[in-house]
Amino acid sequence: MPQAFRFVCFGEVLLRLGAPGRQPLLQSPMLEAHVGGAEANVAVSLARFGHHAALVSRVPDNPLGEAALGQLRRHGVDTTAVDCGEGRMGLYFLTTGAMQRPSQVVYDRAGSAFANTPPAAFDWPRLLEGAAWLHLSGITPALGADSAAAARDAARQARQQGVRVSFDGNYRPQLWQRWQGDAAGVLRELFSLADILFVDHRDLAVVLGQQVPPHQDAFEHAQATAALAFSSFPHLQWVACTHRQARASDHHLLSASICTRQEATFAPAMELSGVVDRIGGGDAFAAGILHGLTQAWPLPQVARFGLAAGCLKHSWPGDFSHSSEADVERLVQGASMDVSR
Amino acid sequence: MPQAFRFVCFGEVLLRLGAPGRQPLLQSPMLEAHVGGAEANVAVSLARFGHHAALVSRVPDNPLGEAALGQLRRHGVDTTAVDCGEGRMGLYFLTTGAMQRPSQVVYDRAGSAFANTPPAAFDWPRLLEGAAWLHLSGITPALGADSAAAARDAARQARQQGVRVSFDGNYRPQLWQRWQGDAAGVLRELFSLADILFVDHRDLAVVLGQQVPPHQDAFEHAQATAALAFSSFPHLQWVACTHRQARASDHHLLSASICTRQEATFAPAMELSGVVDRIGGGDAFAAGILHGLTQAWPLPQVARFGLAAGCLKHSWPGDFSHSSEADVERLVQGASMDVSR
Amino acid sequence: MPQAFRFVCFGEVLLRLGAPGRQPLLQSPMLEAHVGGAEANVAVSLARFGHHAALVSRVPDNPLGEAALGQLRRHGVDTTAVDCGEGRMGLYFLTTGAMQRPSQVVYDRAGSAFANTPPAAFDWPRLLEGAAWLHLSGITPALGADSAAAARDAARQARQQGVRVSFDGNYRPQLWQRWQGDAAGVLRELFSLADILFVDHRDLAVVLGQQVPPHQDAFEHAQATAALAFSSFPHLQWVACTHRQARASDHHLLSASICTRQEATFAPAMELSGVVDRIGGGDAFAAGILHGLTQAWPLPQVARFGLAAGCLKHSWPGDFSHSSEADVERLVQGASMDVSR
Amino acid sequence: MPQAFRFVCFGEVLLRLGAPGRQPLLQSPMLEAHVGGAEANVAVSLARFGHHAALVSRVPDNPLGEAALGQLRRHGVDTTAVDCGEGRMGLYFLTTGAMQRPSQVVYDRAGSAFANTPPAAFDWPRLLEGAAWLHLSGITPALGADSAAAARDAARQARQQGVRVSFDGNYRPQLWQRWQGDAAGVLRELFSLADILFVDHRDLAVVLGQQVPPHQDAFEHAQATAALAFSSFPHLQWVACTHRQARASDHHLLSASICTRQEATFAPAMELSGVVDRIGGGDAFAAGILHGLTQAWPLPQVARFGLAAGCLKHSWPGDFSHSSEADVERLVQGASMDVSR
Amino acid sequence: MPQAFRFVCFGEVLLRLGAPGRQPLLQSPMLEAHVGGAEANVAVSLARFGHHAALVSRVPDNPLGEAALGQLRRHGVDTTAVDCGEGRMGLYFLTTGAMQRPSQVVYDRAGSAFANTPPAAFDWPRLLEGAAWLHLSGITPALGADSAAAARDAARQARQQGVRVSFDGNYRPQLWQRWQGDAAGVLRELFSLADILFVDHRDLAVVLGQQVPPHQDAFEHAQATAALAFSSFPHLQWVACTHRQARASDHHLLSASICTRQEATFAPAMELSGVVDRIGGGDAFAAGILHGLTQAWPLPQVARFGLAAGCLKHSWPGDFSHSSEADVERLVQGASMDVSR
Amino acid sequence: MPQAFRFVCFGEVLLRLGAPGRQPLLQSPMLEAHVGGAEANVAVSLARFGHHAALVSRVPDNPLGEAALGQLRRHGVDTTAVDCGEGRMGLYFLTTGAMQRPSQVVYDRAGSAFANTPPAAFDWPRLLEGAAWLHLSGITPALGADSAAAARDAARQARQQGVRVSFDGNYRPQLWQRWQGDAAGVLRELFSLADILFVDHRDLAVVLGQQVPPHQDAFEHAQATAALAFSSFPHLQWVACTHRQARASDHHLLSASICTRQEATFAPAMELSGVVDRIGGGDAFAAGILHGLTQAWPLPQVARFGLAAGCLKHSWPGDFSHSSEADVERLVQGASMDVSR
Repeated sequence: MPQAFRFVCFGEVLLRLGAPGRQPLLQSPMLEAHVGGAEANVAVSLARFGHHAALVSRVPDNPLGEAALGQLRRHGVDTTAVDCGEGRMGLYFLTTGAMQRPSQVVYDRAGSAFANTPPAAFDWPRLLEGAAWLHLSGITPALGADSAAAARDAARQARQQGVRVSFDGNYRPQLWQRWQGDAAGVLRELFSLADILFVDHRDLAVVLGQQVPPHQDAFEHAQATAALAFSSFPHLQWVACTHRQARASDHHLLSASICTRQEATFAPAMELSGVVDRIGGGDAFAAGILHGLTQAWPLPQVARFGLAAGCLKHSWPGDFSHSSEADVERLVQGASMDVSR
Repeated sequence: MPQAFRFVCFGEVLLRLGAPGRQPLLQSPMLEAHVGGAEANVAVSLARFGHHAALVSRVPDNPLGEAALGQLRRHGVDTTAVDCGEGRMGLYFLTTGAMQRPSQVVYDRAGSAFANTPPAAFDWPRLLEGAAWLHLSGITPALGADSAAAARDAARQARQQGVRVSFDGNYRPQLWQRWQGDAAGVLRELFSLADILFVDHRDLAVVLGQQVPPHQDAFEHAQATAALAFSSFPHLQWVACTHRQARASDHHLLSASICTRQEATFAPAMELSGVVDRIGGGDAFAAGILHGLTQAWPLPQVARFGLAAGCLKHSWPGDFSHSSEADVERLVQGASMDVSR
Repeated sequence: MPQAFRFVCFGEVLLRLGAPGRQPLLQSPMLEAHVGGAEANVAVSLARFGHHAALVSRVPDNPLGEAALGQLRRHGVDTTAVDCGEGRMGLYFLTTGAMQRPSQVVYDRAGSAFANTPPAAFDWPRLLEGAAWLHLSGITPALGADSAAAARDAARQARQQGVRVSFDGNYRPQLWQRWQGDAAGVLRELFSLADILFVDHRDLAVVLGQQVPPHQDAFEHAQATAALAFSSFPHLQWVACTHRQARASDHHLLSASICTRQEATFAPAMELSGVVDRIGGGDAFAAGILHGLTQAWPLPQVARFGLAAGCLKHSWPGDFSHSSEADVERLVQGASMDVSR
Repeated sequence: MPQAFRFVCFGEVLLRLGAPGRQPLLQSPMLEAHVGGAEANVAVSLARFGHHAALVSRVPDNPLGEAALGQLRRHGVDTTAVDCGEGRMGLYFLTTGAMQRPSQVVYDRAGSAFANTPPAAFDWPRLLEGAAWLHLSGITPALGADSAAAARDAARQARQQGVRVSFDGNYRPQLWQRWQGDAAGVLRELFSLADILFVDHRDLAVVLGQQVPPHQDAFEHAQATAALAFSSFPHLQWVACTHRQARASDHHLLSASICTRQEATFAPAMELSGVVDRIGGGDAFAAGILHGLTQAWPLPQVARFGLAAGCLKHSWPGDFSHSSEADVERLVQGASMDVSR
Repeated sequence: MPQAFRFVCFGEVLLRLGAPGRQPLLQSPMLEAHVGGAEANVAVSLARFGHHAALVSRVPDNPLGEAALGQLRRHGVDTTAVDCGEGRMGLYFLTTGAMQRPSQVVYDRAGSAFANTPPAAFDWPRLLEGAAWLHLSGITPALGADSAAAARDAARQARQQGVRVSFDGNYRPQLWQRWQGDAAGVLRELFSLADILFVDHRDLAVVLGQQVPPHQDAFEHAQATAALAFSSFPHLQWVACTHRQARASDHHLLSASICTRQEATFAPAMELSGVVDRIGGGDAFAAGILHGLTQAWPLPQVARFGLAAGCLKHSWPGDFSHSSEADVERLVQGASMDVSR
Repeated sequence: MPQAFRFVCFGEVLLRLGAPGRQPLLQSPMLEAHVGGAEANVAVSLARFGHHAALVSRVPDNPLGEAALGQLRRHGVDTTAVDCGEGRMGLYFLTTGAMQRPSQVVYDRAGSAFANTPPAAFDWPRLLEGAAWLHLSGITPALGADSAAAARDAARQARQQGVRVSFDGNYRPQLWQRWQGDAAGVLRELFSLADILFVDHRDLAVVLGQQVPPHQDAFEHAQATAALAFSSFPHLQWVACTHRQARASDHHLLSASICTRQEATFAPAMELSGVVDRIGGGDAFAAGILHGLTQAWPLPQVARFGLAAGCLKHSWPGDFSHSSEADVERLVQGASMDVSR
């Protein structure tokens, strides 16, 4: 049994409405619904790994909000810190790609109950009580000034209470542009409060206004990125990221790296062929890395576990990963992929 | 073959997302999609009756807007006057009721591409060219100041061009409250421009600030309502409405009346048992009445056709009626309801 | 355990392609498939009642024909006398009605493998070996000159071999018109070969060119019809029919009568409310009557069993009834209709 | 806001596998899955009414058990007292009836993880801490000697800790016969420990070996039953039951009564037409009554609320009711059954 | 914005009925319906590329014909030149292959409304008014003498009105054999009227009775084929074709070539792995090439665009491609295949 | 036309309940049902190859057992030797894997009607009359002492009647452990009665308590295994097996070998990419080999046919293969994998 910790994840819950199979939207008069959201996805994976994962969020006070919360509870997430309020449910519409045709997301999240929440609605000292980690992503501050302030409050309070801060870059320029937010400024403070950053050179360039010099080799590039991050953010202890090559919409190569100030490790590429659902792959990776860190495993084991967790997510339809720690471990160990009876 | 006319319908196209069967929303991870909207529904019925029905509207420039337009075209509506623009698709979520449990609609239409359209975007003199009728409903002006102005412009221009104006009350207090619109004032002008009103005593009370005295008998009540309307609006030629008793969510009694300044007629109640889909029933009734008027039928025939058209809509899933003129006529004539081979 | 007999049913197997639920055809890009055909439906019911029911037919030598045969075998019909040949699968497309909207059948059966079969292809002496009954309907001879000849051959040979002949009128004027067949002449011979006729006054009028005088009362009308039939066809021993009032597409009243030369009995109306699938109701009734006759029950019991069998068919989706003898008997006995655990 | 209490429900969680729509089992190669179980159903309703409803149970340690728990959590039930263990998931297969054809349940629950649990596995003093009510039904003790002992332990301990005991008769002779259990003896003790019994004259006859004399009138019969119960069980405070007439598989009349030692009240019949899903109707009634008692409403209000809760369950597919207190109250108040927007 | 032209496509509309997923026909009692037909498919793609694409055809006057037309209108095809008439809907049944198992088509199109249409029913001078191109394929003349005459009339009139003629070989020996048509003679005239031919060496061998000598290299073979075609047909300006290697049912390599009298270009193979739906791939290629020619792009760009258009079709379920010009262009440009947000 | 033989297959029929697509169990409230069972799967393939395949088994006397039998009859299996009895239907629940995630089977077959059947219930002399082959697998004796005795009785009687015995190892340690059965002893007798064994070195090691020395090369390993088997079992004439490498859950390499005492042949690996359904692959292989042996083909042809039959099964959803002899032969011959029209 792994050692269990309390994680607090802060972010918006979204409802995904997707065309069935590989169809275009509304070819059939039917949409498949999945609950997701970057931070909620991380929470679900962490709960599957045995942790106490609590989501802090707000959903609309209607049957959609209620159903979204119900799904999170179903998958073991503590939703007692999610309240219901005015506003709409954040949605996104998905056309799943195939072959040379990429998947297409149409966001419809403006005016959501979450984005409408004033920062003062979150009582962070109480919400972070007993937590080992706070997990945030770059999507929350991109939703508007209120959300940006709430994310900053959360991270500041976490540092003050000795709760570690995990931040996943997830830079989305369109969201920032909508409200003309100062992405660089807001993210810089959040990066500076983080113990671990899930970022690559592009995220860092936005925040620091400074390019990481290109490298032929993904691992070297990641190490250079990490070096720049470590030199910029004194609290930072880990920098992790995946390297993805999309050969086709449903055929990727995925490798990963994680660096500390002392050490760097690379988990070599897994071939993702016949991808079922790519969304949430990065979130499952982050959850895998965070789990590995809580278990104080050697860095290479952490990297392999994170990569395998991210890889397995691609095999599950929907935003959530349903793989347990044992499932991920079996892949890391190279167990048979034939039917398990 | 009925004589065909050009109808221009002006209003928002909505996407309905409904739980399958009689399930609560998201019990199954699936939503059934239908295109609708009060004025679009009227246009579809009119096209099925053989008319040239054109919709004036705006949808978002994304796959949802495109699919919604495609569905209207599929059902014979001329969509060349629908443009694509900024904003989102207006949505509503539906839980279909059963037995003693009513159906529940959750609207999610704020910020839609249609509601965002400035009134100047509609070139009414051109759009109304060749039209016999303009059809509007009380939903459009309720969406915001811009939509209210556009509806007024359309109706004014129609009167000026000799195009008849049909207006369906559809009073929705929540929509007006959202933007603190002057419902009474706006609707009063629209009512005053109409040749036909689909209204009952409640709509009229809102507009005139004056209650129609209650009557035991639905027909007498409708006649009193019509009398008040005729005395208030000099252009008005017809007042039509349905009378609905919902004994259960899926068991209604529906009768109808239509009055001119000279004549009043009542189509006695049809029993709607095992209702498949009640939404759009009023729109199908309006289309049936308008069709009858274009054919210059005697008033009782108009009323029976309208009621039968409205009744048959309850048997079709989705917002649209798929009944042709011949289908409606067969019901009016009392043809057999056993399998037609 | 009922006593079991060998029944030979001769007719075309059809594939029904229906819109799901109460939708119009192709609103959703999906059709529900059911195997049917008047005589095949009778065979399935007889097999469920414990008899050895063999179908004589021909299906196309392709995956559709093969699947249709497979379904019949699945439901216990002996298909060893069905061969595969040139031609297409007979189809019909169904839009299921609701409320005041009748169901609509679009036939697409011209050029089928069955209709293309020359009468000489059927070796009746061998096919009827060991049979107690031959069952035919008026559809087979309506399909073309070859089918008409084959039906006549079958009935003649049955009489010769001492096999009882059951004939269900099923008069379909459109089919006869297609090939300008002499309906009256062909059917007259078939009627004259029958031991039991499932016919009403309309069928008889076609065959005899003589109207049964109208009666207010359904039972009296049926008795007058039977009297005329008995006086015209000396071999005839039983005349049975149902009386159906369709108050709505899914709400019928169904009663039944059966007459011998000595006796007449009437099974009073059952209320069919919330009809699931009306197609095949007459076939299930015929099977019920035939079963009752084989068991040598008193005539009123035969009538009640037949009516209950017909009634229960309306509760099963598809052309086949899935009710066993015990199921039908429970309804005849008035057993509880609450959940059976 | 209603006052909230802690309820502990003890019983087996079942997985229902049902044929879609009105089909026979496996006509389509698909089964619809629902989680249920008499006591779990009560817990879900109580949670919807705002209470803290905890289930005490055991599910198998496999994906089915996990999914069942997840569904309960989703609907707001506290599952922290459900553990995972050896054995299988209890199943039942359902063919939903229609018209004159009754629904048919095939149980497949022998050898379940719950039935295999030794009574000592339940630490009742701890499990009942803080609870206002314990709810049990006659199904649990019918599953085997271990389950019977566990039910008795629970009820005894509840009485000792001042937790009220609710017992729903649910007499199932087949289950008792399987292990030759002494139904009368076991149930007599459980009845004697109850504060409220949901029973009718049949249950009581089993337990007391004594018939309640038949009454023409359902209410009088219920009062006579209650009188006998009160005279036999000194702790008993309330006796409640429904009276159901099944006119067809999907058309019932349902009334209810509740009696105290001082008072008796009758909630007149609601017509259940177009029943969607009858299973769980009694459980929703029980939950409604228990809710009413916690709110200290007058007895007639309790009865009407219970009956309305039971009635609304028939409109939801699956074993659970999704109606909130407000939903039930609206029906009690006679609010409109037309679409709620 | 591309420059838009009027295209007239002439051919039969078919309804595809396919087994879901990778199932055999009727394993599940369900068929998925898609509208298709070689020329209709081209029209849909051209409409998606921004052209005015009109179909000339005939469908049966029943709900199937109506639905097929509705689908074409939905996807932007001008159907005003499609009339309704006697006859049936052309069908084909599809079992989609997988792995080493090829897809299987069962045609059921004999006696269709289209094939029954006399050539005089088409008023070509009017139908071709304003058109830049007429597109035909070898399927139409193969349907019967009437269709062959109609195709010839269309092509002759096009040449006379200065409308360019596009002809896609699509040689189907079974169709020609059914009516003993003179394939070589009919096709020779049609080839001789074409400005562009989509043919390979097999088509040409049929028409000219002369084999193109085999080449190791696909491009050289195509050039030799084109040379023979140019020398045989003086009006001919372009010869285009794809080269397909099917390594498995769902894994192909697809390259393409296009030749003029002066120039030849080859678009190297794209790997089609995880093919979703191969049907209509050639039609999408033809539409892509025609689009490129209208835009007067350099020949290599035309070839790459055509190949990419054909490739993308394989990723869409159904006969139609839903890719826009921008979608195809993105693939030509090598844009990222990861999720587009 | 191949020469047809009578095969008797003896084993349990199972109902598979699987999550749709690549979902986890009960993510959607739906399970896909398939009938299967190792020996039933072999029977279905043999029937498709033209043989008379009879199953000897027992199913529960309820709608599940009836439906399972119906499915077998549908696919051409003779089920007249399957009786109905007490007990439950054997089930298994399947989560289909994808990518690096293996499929997962949860068995729920304890207490099945088949496993409960006493060996005396099978009248082997009569059941084996006219049979050329008896086919058994290692699953039947693993179900309990009764099943083990019945399997032994069957094999002994077959040898006595001159019916050849085919035995597929299918060693399942968990089943044996449940009843502490003497796997080695029971299987040793069954192996010694077989004419053909489908086994690999692992099966043999269990039975003989002796390891086959490891070989680098699959074929050499198979030959060594066969040599050991031949030396241990004097009746044995053939040893066949497949060699599977699972590179991913849906990407395997499959080769096969078959040895006699004189000859050994190897069918080189087929690449199984995009596997649709791996279950039943071994059974289809066994059926292919048995078919080849009945046709007295040269050993290499037998091996290639068996491997191709096994390969094609992976392309069909469900436990059964739907490939005919001609389908398998086309793959052996290397026919085109593009659409067959």
